Amino acid sequence: MKGKQGKSEITIDKGINDASPEDYDALFIPGGFSPDILRADDRFVSFSKAFMAAKKPVLAICHGPQLLITAETLNGRDVTGYKSIHVDLINAGGNLHDKEVVVCQNQLITSRQPDDIPAFVQESLRILG
Amino acid sequence: MKGKQGKSEITIDKGINDASPEDYDALFIPGGFSPDILRADDRFVSFSKAFMAAKKPVLAICHGPQLLITAETLNGRDVTGYKSIHVDLINAGGNLHDKEVVVCQNQLITSRQPDDIPAFVQESLRILG
Repeated sequence: MKGKQGKSEITIDKGINDASPEDYDALFIPGGFSPDILRADDRFVSFSKAFMAAKKPVLAICHGPQLLITAETLNGRDVTGYKSIHVDLINAGGNLHDKEVVVCQNQLITSRQPDDIPAFVQESLRILG
Repeated sequence: MKGKQGKSEITIDKGINDASPEDYDALFIPGGFSPDILRADDRFVSFSKAFMAAKKPVLAICHGPQLLITAETLNGRDVTGYKSIHVDLINAGGNLHDKEVVVCQNQLITSRQPDDIPAFVQESLRILG
């Protein structure tokens, strides 16, 4: 499929109905308004919950952490996200940090916005490496 | 300005910098992804907070209640909203009801989705009448 701006193209290997969390080592949740759609669908909520429960690396940026709120996985965790969802992250029991990247228990990596991508990628590669 | 689908046109009387809550009797917060943008801007958060503090009618549908979460006005209130934000409404201290329209203290009216518009309009007209 093509990206929203038509500039990049990506091949989707598998749909959510055919994918099992056990087959993957890490989960990346991109931002934008997509997480609002994902969190309204129990299949994606369960999928993300499985990675958090298994303590596998989860990398979420911008609105990505919204999915983790619905999965009820942020209580007591250090976290950040897009400005508009800061209050939701706090209300979900997260310890909010207004920083470009937040690493929690060397497992959960979150960032706020596109400007934070270099720091987000650096920390993500570190824990995946 | 024109609507997203170009079908309808609306004249904006005033921008947020020129509008005072005291000059209005009620507030309507439409849904879609607009509330995510409004809640990231303190001017809109304060504006909505003033209506809730003054107990003036506030009518919010779909994602509209997100703005009221950021304004910290939903604790202990009966409320509904779009499916994806149900968990955020509960975490904000709201009493969530999965109903087409929820009327709280004859002041706050919320609905879940476009399907609920007839019930939403009916209750809104009732308290505005």
